[in-house]
Amino acid sequence: MKDFKMAICQMTVTDNKDKNINKAYSMIKEAAQNGAKLIALGEMFNCPYDGSYFPKFAESLPDGKTYNMLKACSKELDVYIIGGSIPELHGEVIYNTSCVFDKEGKLIAKHRKMHLFDVELNSGLTFKESSYLGKGNDIVVFDTEYCKIGLAICYDIRFPELSRLLTLKGAEVIVIPAAFNMTTGPAHWEILLRTRALDNQVYMVGASPARDVSASYVAYGNSLVVSPWGDIMSRAKEGEEIIYANLQGSLVKKTRDELPLLKHIRKDIYEIIIK
Amino acid sequence: MKDFKMAICQMTVTDNKDKNINKAYSMIKEAAQNGAKLIALGEMFNCPYDGSYFPKFAESLPDGKTYNMLKACSKELDVYIIGGSIPELHGEVIYNTSCVFDKEGKLIAKHRKMHLFDVELNSGLTFKESSYLGKGNDIVVFDTEYCKIGLAICYDIRFPELSRLLTLKGAEVIVIPAAFNMTTGPAHWEILLRTRALDNQVYMVGASPARDVSASYVAYGNSLVVSPWGDIMSRAKEGEEIIYANLQGSLVKKTRDELPLLKHIRKDIYEIIIK
Repeated sequence: MKDFKMAICQMTVTDNKDKNINKAYSMIKEAAQNGAKLIALGEMFNCPYDGSYFPKFAESLPDGKTYNMLKACSKELDVYIIGGSIPELHGEVIYNTSCVFDKEGKLIAKHRKMHLFDVELNSGLTFKESSYLGKGNDIVVFDTEYCKIGLAICYDIRFPELSRLLTLKGAEVIVIPAAFNMTTGPAHWEILLRTRALDNQVYMVGASPARDVSASYVAYGNSLVVSPWGDIMSRAKEGEEIIYANLQGSLVKKTRDELPLLKHIRKDIYEIIIK
Repeated sequence: MKDFKMAICQMTVTDNKDKNINKAYSMIKEAAQNGAKLIALGEMFNCPYDGSYFPKFAESLPDGKTYNMLKACSKELDVYIIGGSIPELHGEVIYNTSCVFDKEGKLIAKHRKMHLFDVELNSGLTFKESSYLGKGNDIVVFDTEYCKIGLAICYDIRFPELSRLLTLKGAEVIVIPAAFNMTTGPAHWEILLRTRALDNQVYMVGASPARDVSASYVAYGNSLVVSPWGDIMSRAKEGEEIIYANLQGSLVKKTRDELPLLKHIRKDIYEIIIK
């Protein structure tokens, strides 16, 4: 892993897709001008987080306004873009999908959200993603010129098995476009990111949309970058904001050398297998 | 699971074994008199946390001063005791072992620490448990009249696989006698306990010795009880102290009904297997 500067664009998402795409472009541009080499967006950055919007805002990949903007933008600005997520239409199924582009504008990875958020919280919040989204089935790790990156979306972070598998597949950084809400955000967002980081001794990058209290689903914001030791390196507030972090290439190995957790996994007793 | 009151006895450990045993007895008695039905002690509560003491303080089970005190005490006071841990001599090997007694004084579970702490932290702290301890190999869940309990010791908590397996074996409460230090304690103790609780939707009970700054190994203290939602229910300070918590029988199921994480594990994609 090499040293590099990264950014999270925590943007306000509206019900106007073109406006969202333009906003993403302008924030990515600002981040690139400030020296970020890898730039992450939040979950469903082109679409309100509401199932009724997904069919209208969805794109069939590899094409569509959002996809093409990200592709062109990464090449124009010479940056890696982890394109948060968007609704992807494939056949008759919509997925919650993250696309990653390298500096040449080439799609180098794609992750479809693997765990769907079907809950009834006692705060009154009910969500049933599986009624309008299909499930992804792939554990996605990809290489960049700086580091190996594992990719997962929002609720995926709740499952320690997945972060462990991403790590065992070589991830040194795990990026999570996410939109925790005002119940689960204050209660769980920070400790989940910090504990996944320190369990696996990876950088954790949690990229949220900005909080919009007028939306039907109110995101928590608070995008975070966490070190392999579990320390918060950079944290957004609730509003629209770009945050930056300088990832140190040597820190993953240093942390793993000092506290060799991955070597101490008792593979003779238990193991996470991929089916 | 039923409602019950529990206690953690966060005691100061000295280099006098009899004194430690007497102190444990008196703290357990006080906790029982205050209505606790299940009482947990910290890691190595009868012995300084220093490998050079282990051979002299070790006991061959099922016998020994410490073992016999716990056995008699649980019967006398009509309580379950999770006897923190002690050095156990078995053949020529010493284990870091936790013994659990029911209200009749019967040994109902025993866990030998499964992951050994071999580290060189940049704070200067070096520890190599595997040079003087053997490894346990069992995943221990036992039943009580109140709930099913999973048992692990200190460094075992660093491995999310183990907490998950304890949960899948039925644990509703996971008890961790532990002695985090002044580097890992402030950095990791709380978020590890809270995240294991919320990942698995179990109560987490972390029982530490009191902090003794004159000891060769300085424990963090800060014993904790965490709810299945990840909230801190009870927390000790650094010194000698008994803390209490009322565990609600319905909360594990309620939390799992609202946010059905365990049902959402993608067993079709990955699985933690026991070998």
